[in-house]
Order: sequence, then C-alpha cells, then structure tokens
Amino acid sequence: MSEQQDKHQQRQQKVKQQVDEKIAAAQQEQGILQVITGNGKGKSTSGFGTVARCVGHGMNAAVVQFIKGTWDCGERNLLEKVGVPFAVMKTGFTWETQNRETDTAAAQATWQQAKVWLQDESIDLVLLDEITYMLSYDYLDLDEVITALENRPSMQSVIVTGRGAHRRLTELADTVSEVRNVKHAFEAGIKAQKGFDY
Amino acid sequence: MSEQQDKHQQRQQKVKQQVDEKIAAAQQEQGILQVITGNGKGKSTSGFGTVARCVGHGMNAAVVQFIKGTWDCGERNLLEKVGVPFAVMKTGFTWETQNRETDTAAAQATWQQAKVWLQDESIDLVLLDEITYMLSYDYLDLDEVITALENRPSMQSVIVTGRGAHRRLTELADTVSEVRNVKHAFEAGIKAQKGFDY
Repeated sequence: MSEQQDKHQQRQQKVKQQVDEKIAAAQQEQGILQVITGNGKGKSTSGFGTVARCVGHGMNAAVVQFIKGTWDCGERNLLEKVGVPFAVMKTGFTWETQNRETDTAAAQATWQQAKVWLQDESIDLVLLDEITYMLSYDYLDLDEVITALENRPSMQSVIVTGRGAHRRLTELADTVSEVRNVKHAFEAGIKAQKGFDY
Repeated sequence: MSEQQDKHQQRQQKVKQQVDEKIAAAQQEQGILQVITGNGKGKSTSGFGTVARCVGHGMNAAVVQFIKGTWDCGERNLLEKVGVPFAVMKTGFTWETQNRETDTAAAQATWQQAKVWLQDESIDLVLLDEITYMLSYDYLDLDEVITALENRPSMQSVIVTGRGAHRRLTELADTVSEVRNVKHAFEAGIKAQKGFDY
C-alpha cells in the first residue's frame, strides 16, 4: 500500500468512527420539524425536494402553499400527478394584491386545510411553504400555528419555509437551516429562467 | 378604506415598484450556474427540488450523484420513474470505502457521463450533486470541471452542490447560496427519518 493511500485510509477511518458514533447516539424516532429560513434562493425548492423524496419512498406528503399560488409551478405539476394533495392560497404575492382584508381571508382559508393535515397521522410530511410571511403580516395567529405544530402526530414531519422565521418557530424546530444569499443571477441582470427559477 | 388598510397598501405599492424595477432590469436570457454550499441540511434536496420543477414544466434534466449512490434514494425512485436519467457513483461515502484508488476511478467514470450531458443542448438542467467533495479530494481535476462548465450550451443551467465549494466555482457561478446549519435534529439525538432525511 502506498504511503498516500495509507494516510488517506487513516484519515477516513477517523471520520468513519466519528460518523458511526454520532449515528449510534441518535436513536430517538420521531417526526422532525424543520425550518428553512434566510434570504437566499432555494428554501421552497428544498422543501419540494424533501416532498419528492418522501413520495419516492411510497410515503404520503401534503403541500400548503401560502404565496406562490398564481405562478405556473413546475413542482406542483409533477407532484400533483403522483398524488400529492396541494392547498394553494391563490392570491399571489402580497405586494401584488395590496389588500389586507382579502389576503387575511385567503390565508385563513388555506390554514384550515393545513390544520386538517396536521391532525392526520396518515400524512408523513406536511410542507408549509412560505407560512412565515403569513405570521409576519399577522394574517395567521402565531399561537394557533405553534399549537397545531406541537399537537401533530408524533411521527409526522413538517417543513416550514420563508424568510424571517419567528423566534418561537425556530425554538420549537428540531432542525433549522438558514439559506444565505451569497450572490444571485437576478442582481447581475439575468432574467428568471423557466424550469430553473420558477 | 380603513387607515390600516391604507398604510398597508402604500407600503405594498412601494415593494411592488421595487420588485417591478428589478424585473425590468433583468432581461438577459441564459442558463444559470448555481452553487449550493455550506454545512447546513438541504443542499442536495434543493437541487432535486429544482429538477422536479424542471421536469414538471416538460423540460429535460439529468442528475449526476457523486456520493449518495448506495443509499435507498427516494428522489431517485420518483425522478427516474418520470424519465430523468441518473449517473450514480455507487461507492457510497468516501469515509466508508477508505480506498483512494477505487474512489478516484469511480469518480472519473461518473464524470465521463457528466461531461456528455454538459455538451448536450437538449438537456436543460444538469445537477452535479456533491461534486465539491470530488474536487476537495482531488478525485477530479478542477480545471477540467471549470472548462466543461464554461463550454456548456448557453441555455443549459447547472446546479453544483456540496460543502466547501472551491473559490473558482463560486466565482464562475451566477447564483451562490450558502446553507448554514443553525441546529440539527441529529445533534439532539433524533434518528434520521426515512422519507425526510433520506
């Protein structure tokens, strides 16, 4: 065996030990609450990727979209075709509608469906896409959302996406990722591309 | 109109103006190179979400997986079923194999398929999942990868995922997101959950 290969093997052996120890320590079985926040690209997309993973295992996922409802949505086209139910707040971006009362009513109606899924133990994963904005704008009641998350079936996982996640949400979460925008094509004058950006 | 609604509308009108101006300024049409890096959860998942989006629009995507090949992969189950081609480096995590020569050969073989797709303009999106590790370990040549990315079809988008993306990759990229780990269920003793973590 070459010296390089020998060193490589020693180094990798140590990494393997550390990984194996962590895996051995993590034995609690429960649904996971994940918050994906931050100002970078890919928060909703990451949520949809996990939905695709869940469905690919023959498990059940449901998606609640609180904002992007009026866009032609590639993920929804694909995932609805394979049986994922969607609840969509169809009013589009809040800065397009500019009407507080109709937005609040739409958010509340969408949330009613979310609550049904958050009580249904046959649903393995619920994606609450962009719900953080509904809380920032007070379209939904934070206490009510927290209570619904706390009381969900114990093996159900939930993903919450959106900028500016409330501290009470991140405290309740098991896993929190922050997506940071390092640079963005849009800022360099490149148009949003179908199949990539939307 | 109530005073609250009036203020809300003024604020949203301003946001709308800013968004509309940015959209008007971004008119260049081209494929986008996105790097998703950082130590947080959801980098590959975000890449798979964009693949689902692309396919949902009836466009063509291809996936090259440089590490997670031996896992039961929910995303692959679903996406292969709807016609997405996968090239998978089947040797698993590098700290499991502990053999530099066989890992290098496997990485090189997988990269040959990636190069074919990076020259094929019928492919709208190529996901190079976890390729950053192949570069950190010198399993692949950085210059060769950079050249292939630079010479790809002009409307093709590429997503590169993995920790520790090389500076030359992030410089070349149009969009760079860093996923930061704020907290992780695994560290709190919660076992990785099928359909969620893998």
